[in-house]
Amino acid sequence: MPDVTQATDHPRRPGRPRANPATQASGLSTRDQILDAAAALFVEEGFGACTTRQIAERAGIRQASVYYHFASKDEVLLVLLSSSIRPSLAFAVRLREDPDAPDDPAVRLCALVIADVRLLAGARHNIASLYGLPEVQEKAQFAGFRAERHELITVYGDFAGAVVPLVDRTLCGTLVMQLVESVIGLRTADRFRTEYEGDIAKACLRMLGVGDVEIDLAVREARAFLEDPA
Amino acid sequence: MPDVTQATDHPRRPGRPRANPATQASGLSTRDQILDAAAALFVEEGFGACTTRQIAERAGIRQASVYYHFASKDEVLLVLLSSSIRPSLAFAVRLREDPDAPDDPAVRLCALVIADVRLLAGARHNIASLYGLPEVQEKAQFAGFRAERHELITVYGDFAGAVVPLVDRTLCGTLVMQLVESVIGLRTADRFRTEYEGDIAKACLRMLGVGDVEIDLAVREARAFLEDPA
Repeated sequence: MPDVTQATDHPRRPGRPRANPATQASGLSTRDQILDAAAALFVEEGFGACTTRQIAERAGIRQASVYYHFASKDEVLLVLLSSSIRPSLAFAVRLREDPDAPDDPAVRLCALVIADVRLLAGARHNIASLYGLPEVQEKAQFAGFRAERHELITVYGDFAGAVVPLVDRTLCGTLVMQLVESVIGLRTADRFRTEYEGDIAKACLRMLGVGDVEIDLAVREARAFLEDPA
Repeated sequence: MPDVTQATDHPRRPGRPRANPATQASGLSTRDQILDAAAALFVEEGFGACTTRQIAERAGIRQASVYYHFASKDEVLLVLLSSSIRPSLAFAVRLREDPDAPDDPAVRLCALVIADVRLLAGARHNIASLYGLPEVQEKAQFAGFRAERHELITVYGDFAGAVVPLVDRTLCGTLVMQLVESVIGLRTADRFRTEYEGDIAKACLRMLGVGDVEIDLAVREARAFLEDPA
């Protein structure tokens, strides 16, 4: 599971209710227990149908604990959604700024695609399947998440534009993001396989017109950087 | 607007309420007026939030008329969703069976992609943005639609497999469908442009490893067939 605790800064409040000892068994903090229970419920039962009481029950804690850590059920969802985007945005910044990051634009794009596929595929619950929720699409409370997702599309467009300079960045960013997000539907249909991460990265580069020899090299270099980024 | 009246067979019931003459002005049948009003409301206001009474008001007809034509609000949505998939499935069958259809697998795939992009882009309301609704993903009532959408992915996989025989059809069908469905997000963000239909078709073929010269030919032939299929 990605470290969802990094996804937002929520101020600690005084008078924190003690967590039930049962929740400590997993080694997760109470906050992460809540996020994990909520993610499972939202994905399995639906966001609208489930309550903070059910989240608390599933996490084995008191309902007050949920409200100690989060202002509302919406905020729990917002943190979960952001956790499926922010690490990829942060990784893109590193790829741009780290002097040890690969120079070749095709390798950078490839590294970002693979990292993003791993994030979506590796989350314990298929959080990204909630992107289409009407609340997420419409409510002002999720405007921040929508902006982050749009930013990731822009980043993909910039990275694609570095590979193919004359490209329409809006369209290419959208198309690359679409290919990455194929993970969501494949997971829902129980059809995702680990080796698809390389296939999806290759599909992105091939779609941009990169040749097969360069693609194989790019995937190898991107993986090497991901395995040992130092 | 696609001919939504073809999307389902609903038996006529006796005692049909007379439509308000105002609805006739558009030239649409009462049934299509209901579908159009519902599509607008579902996309703009959300499916859960709107009622059959509101649909009737927007269509300028009596609420009883809605229930004369449709069993429920769910059925209205089901007909709308199917109208965004079935014409592409039907066109795929024609591409396979019509002796006048192009022989070249790349041209066939290209024709199907362009037809599907036009269907999604040309619908008066962005119906496909409702695919992600939890009701649509979960409720038994929409199982038929989910099966149709999965069938279209399978068709794309088969068409892609005819272009590149050794391809993983599950993955390729999904990736091609993802590229086609980029229309949905682009429309939501007010960023879709007509010329993207050709770009998306080219992206699909390039992703499958087809060369640039063959791609240009395929797009030209596919368009010629679409313009004059006889």
